[in-house]
Amino acid sequence: SNNFFLLSGPCAIEGEDMAMRIAEVIVKVTDELKIPYVFKGSFKKANRSRADSFTGIGDEKALKILRKVSETFKVPTITDIHEVSDADMAAEYVDVLQIPAFLVRQTDLVVAAAETGKTVNLKKGQFMSPESMKHAVNKVKESDNENVWITDRGTMFGYQDMIVDFRGVPTMKQYAPVVLDVTHSLQQPNQASGVTGGRPELINTMARAGIAAGVDGIFMETHFDPANAKSDGANMLDLKMLPQLLKNLTALRQTINSLPSLVNN
Amino acid sequence: SNNFFLLSGPCAIEGEDMAMRIAEVIVKVTDELKIPYVFKGSFKKANRSRADSFTGIGDEKALKILRKVSETFKVPTITDIHEVSDADMAAEYVDVLQIPAFLVRQTDLVVAAAETGKTVNLKKGQFMSPESMKHAVNKVKESDNENVWITDRGTMFGYQDMIVDFRGVPTMKQYAPVVLDVTHSLQQPNQASGVTGGRPELINTMARAGIAAGVDGIFMETHFDPANAKSDGANMLDLKMLPQLLKNLTALRQTINSLPSLVNN
Amino acid sequence: SNNFFLLSGPCAIEGEDMAMRIAEVIVKVTDELKIPYVFKGSFKKANRSRADSFTGIGDEKALKILRKVSETFKVPTITDIHEVSDADMAAEYVDVLQIPAFLVRQTDLVVAAAETGKTVNLKKGQFMSPESMKHAVNKVKESDNENVWITDRGTMFGYQDMIVDFRGVPTMKQYAPVVLDVTHSLQQPNQASGVTGGRPELINTMARAGIAAGVDGIFMETHFDPANAKSDGANMLDLKMLPQLLKNLTALRQTINSLPSLVNN
Amino acid sequence: SNNFFLLSGPCAIEGEDMAMRIAEVIVKVTDELKIPYVFKGSFKKANRSRADSFTGIGDEKALKILRKVSETFKVPTITDIHEVSDADMAAEYVDVLQIPAFLVRQTDLVVAAAETGKTVNLKKGQFMSPESMKHAVNKVKESDNENVWITDRGTMFGYQDMIVDFRGVPTMKQYAPVVLDVTHSLQQPNQASGVTGGRPELINTMARAGIAAGVDGIFMETHFDPANAKSDGANMLDLKMLPQLLKNLTALRQTINSLPSLVNN
Repeated sequence: SNNFFLLSGPCAIEGEDMAMRIAEVIVKVTDELKIPYVFKGSFKKANRSRADSFTGIGDEKALKILRKVSETFKVPTITDIHEVSDADMAAEYVDVLQIPAFLVRQTDLVVAAAETGKTVNLKKGQFMSPESMKHAVNKVKESDNENVWITDRGTMFGYQDMIVDFRGVPTMKQYAPVVLDVTHSLQQPNQASGVTGGRPELINTMARAGIAAGVDGIFMETHFDPANAKSDGANMLDLKMLPQLLKNLTALRQTINSLPSLVNN
Repeated sequence: SNNFFLLSGPCAIEGEDMAMRIAEVIVKVTDELKIPYVFKGSFKKANRSRADSFTGIGDEKALKILRKVSETFKVPTITDIHEVSDADMAAEYVDVLQIPAFLVRQTDLVVAAAETGKTVNLKKGQFMSPESMKHAVNKVKESDNENVWITDRGTMFGYQDMIVDFRGVPTMKQYAPVVLDVTHSLQQPNQASGVTGGRPELINTMARAGIAAGVDGIFMETHFDPANAKSDGANMLDLKMLPQLLKNLTALRQTINSLPSLVNN
Repeated sequence: SNNFFLLSGPCAIEGEDMAMRIAEVIVKVTDELKIPYVFKGSFKKANRSRADSFTGIGDEKALKILRKVSETFKVPTITDIHEVSDADMAAEYVDVLQIPAFLVRQTDLVVAAAETGKTVNLKKGQFMSPESMKHAVNKVKESDNENVWITDRGTMFGYQDMIVDFRGVPTMKQYAPVVLDVTHSLQQPNQASGVTGGRPELINTMARAGIAAGVDGIFMETHFDPANAKSDGANMLDLKMLPQLLKNLTALRQTINSLPSLVNN
Repeated sequence: SNNFFLLSGPCAIEGEDMAMRIAEVIVKVTDELKIPYVFKGSFKKANRSRADSFTGIGDEKALKILRKVSETFKVPTITDIHEVSDADMAAEYVDVLQIPAFLVRQTDLVVAAAETGKTVNLKKGQFMSPESMKHAVNKVKESDNENVWITDRGTMFGYQDMIVDFRGVPTMKQYAPVVLDVTHSLQQPNQASGVTGGRPELINTMARAGIAAGVDGIFMETHFDPANAKSDGANMLDLKMLPQLLKNLTALRQTINSLPSLVNN
C-alpha cells in the first residue's frame, strides 16, 4: 500500500491483558485500512521526572509480552532502549529499537542499536534541529544498517511547552523516513510538580497536519483508559477514537498521494 | 463554496502595472476554483529593519491602485495600517484593514480600524500566544464590529527563526476565522544584516499543513519576479506556482471537509 | 560620577501626589549615591492586552505632572510615545522619549522621536536580537541625533515567559549606552487572562547580574503600594526597598569599575 | 573561605602532560585566591554530534591521569559518566561524578552515581526548567546521598543557540549548591555541520553575571591552546586569561558577600 505506517500501542507494557487488548483493536483497523502497523510498548520507563513514578513490570516479563503480541497478531513490535546493554536483550524480542529523544546524542547507544541489525527509530531530541538529525542517522548507516527512521516528538518551546516544527519534515525526509509522534509532541513537560501534562484534544489536528506535511509514519500512544494508564495518561489517545481517526488520516493520505507536484518552470 | 478563502498579492504596491498583472492571474484561478479572494497589497512599509529599505511609492497613489484592482476585477482588497490616522484614509479605498503583528497590542489602532466598520484582520504578534489573541479580537467586537479575522504569521523561535504552532488553529477559531500567513511564517528575521531571510521552498508544506489543521483562509504573498521584488523577495511565492498550489489545496480542503468528526463515545 | 544611571518611577502617572511622592524618595537616595537619575512615568498606556485595562488620566494632565516633577526636583524625565503625533507633544514636557518594545521597528515613530532632538530610549523588542538593535539605533543617528540609548526588557521565551540574554549587553554597548529594564524583564506575559504576571522577588538578582554584566543604566518601576498600582503592579519594586537596593548596586558598580580588564597576551 | 568554588580543566583528558600542565596553573592561582578547586576532565566523550568526533584516549588511561592529578596537586577531581556501569568504575578514581545534561532524566544513572557515595554534580538539561531540577536532586537525596550540586550550562533558545536564565539561580539554590557552567552555556549547538560553535569572548561577562546572581561555583573549561583542543575548542577559555579572571571574580564575590540583604519592612 502507499499508506502511512503506524507505530502505536500503550506507553508502557503494564501487563499481558492490556497489551493484547490494545493490539487487537489496532490490528483489526490497520488491516482493514492497509496501514503497515508496528505495535509499540516500553518495557521500562527509565527517564521519569520523579523517582516515585511507575517504571515497569520487569524487563523480561514486558519483553515476553511484546513477543507474544507479535506472534499472536503477526505484527512487528518496537520498544525503546536506554543503555548499551539493553540493545542485544531487546533485539531478541522486538523488530525495531527506539532511541529516546534525550539519548539520541549518545553515540554508544545508537551504534549498539544499529549493530543488532534491527531497524532503529531515532527520536529527535527536543533540543535538536531537524538538520542535526543527519548526524544521528549517519551513526546508524556507518554501522552498516540502512534501516533507520526519524521520529519527531516536538521541540522545546519555553520551559513548559513543546512545539512541532513541520518545516522539519521535508528536511529530515532527506535522511530517512520521518514519523510524527503525535501524542508526545502534545506534552507540556517540566512542570514543577514533576508530572507531565498534555493536550490530547489536539491529537486530531496534529495528525492531520503531519499527514499533509508528508510524514511517512504516525506514532501515537493509546489506551482504553487513559485516565488510569500508569504513564503518560495526560496525552494518550482514547483507543475508542483510534479507528475513525485512522480512517480519516487514510483518506487524507490518499488525497496527498494524488496531488501533482509543483513545478517552477 | 465551502473552500478556504485567499488573501494574496504582492508584499508592497510597487506600481499599477505589477498590481494589475498579479491580480489578473490570481483572479482567474480563484474564480475557477471557487476560492473567495481578497487582493492584498501594502500601501507603505512602515516597519523595515533598516532606514534605507523601500517604504512605498506614496500613500494615496498606492491606495488608488488598490481601488483600481478592486473595480477592475470585482474583488475586495486588504491593506495594512500603522497609525490611527491611517484607518479612515485606508478605509476609503479597501475592504479589509490589517493590523500588523508588531502593532496588534496597540488598542487605539485596533479600535480605530474597528470603528471604520471594515473587516479587521489582526495579525498575531510573533510574541503572542494563540490564547492571548482573544483580547485583541474582543477590542474589535466591543467596538460593535463583528467582522474580524486572525492571521497567524508564525511565532518567534530564537532570534533568527519563526515557527508555526498549529495547535493555535483550533484555539483561535474559537474567537474568529483563522488565516495562515504561509509566506511570512517562513521568514528568518533579525538577521544582523537587517535583511530578512526566508525559506520559500517550504511554502507547499506549510500551506498543506494549514489546510489540514483547519484554517479558514490562506495568506500568501506572491510576485512574478520575487528576486526583484522591492520587499520580502526572500519569502514570496513565485506567481507561476500559485495556480497548481491552489488546485492542490482545494483538493485537500474538499477531503478535509468530507471527514467525519471524531466522537469520544 | 562613574556610577550607573537610573530610569525609575511609577509605571503610569496616576496623579500628581503619587508622582511627587515617588520622585522625592528616589531623588534623595540618588543624590546621596551620585546616581544620575531620570524620572519615568507613562502619560498613557496604549498597548494593554485588554480593552478594559487602565490607560491613563489624560495626556496633557499627565505630561504636566512630569514637567512639575522635573521643575521641583531638578531632574530630567522620560515618557513613552506611541504615535508620530505624540513625539512633538511629549517633547515639550520631557527630556527623553522612549519607544516601546512593540514599536521599535516603526521607522516613522523612531524618526519622529529622533527629530525632536531629545534623547531617544529604544526598548529592544521582545522579538529582536541584540544585533538587530543596531538598525534601530542607526535610524536615530541618521536623523542627526546622537543621543540614543537601548533598553533591554527581556526576550520572548515560550508564550508565557521572558528571559534576559546578558550576552546582549556587550553586543549592544557597541551601538549605544545599554540599560537593563529589571522590572519588565521579569514579566510573565500573554496569560490567557490578559493580565500580565511577574516575579518581583527576582529584582535583586537581575539588577546585580545587570551591573556585573556591564550595563550603563538600570530601569526599574517602583510604587509605594504595588498591589494597588493601576498598571504592572505584579512586577514593580516596592519603593521601600529601593534605597538599599541602590546602595548595593552602587557598591557593586564600584567594584566592577575597579577590575582590570582581561588581556589575552 | 567564603569564596566561590571552581570546577575547571580541559574538556577531555587528551593525555597526561596536558592535564598536569593545566592543573598546575589552576592550582597555583586558586591556592592564592582561596578558591576551593576541583580538577575537571572527561574520560570519554560519549555524546558527540558526529561519529567521527574525538571520543577519548581510553577509559582507564584517562581515569588514571585524573587520579595522578589528584595525588600530585592534592585536589579533588570530577568526571562525567554516561552509563550505569561507569559509576562504580569512575568512583574509584574521582571525587565527584557528573551527570551530563542530556542524561539527567535517566533515573538509573543518577541513582547509580548517588549510590557510590561520591558527590554528584547534576547538569541541568538544556530542555529543563530550574524548577524541574528539584526532582533530579531528590533522586540523589533519596539514595541517602546529600552531596549533590546543580550545574547550569544554559537552556535551549531556538535551534542554534543557548541562553542562561539567571532567574534560575535563586530557584535552584533552594535544592542544592548551584554552579554556572560558563563555557558550555556559550555554545551555539546543533549546527548543520555537527560541529558546535561558541562565543568565548563572552566568558568574562557571563562569569561576572553569575557571581553577581549568587552562584556557589563556577565551571569553566580551559586549555593552553583552545584552537587545537580535541573537543569544545570553540568555547574554552585560554588558560593564560584564567588567573586574572579568577582574581576579578574573587573581588566581585567579596563585594557580593558584603552586601546587606534587602528587607521589605
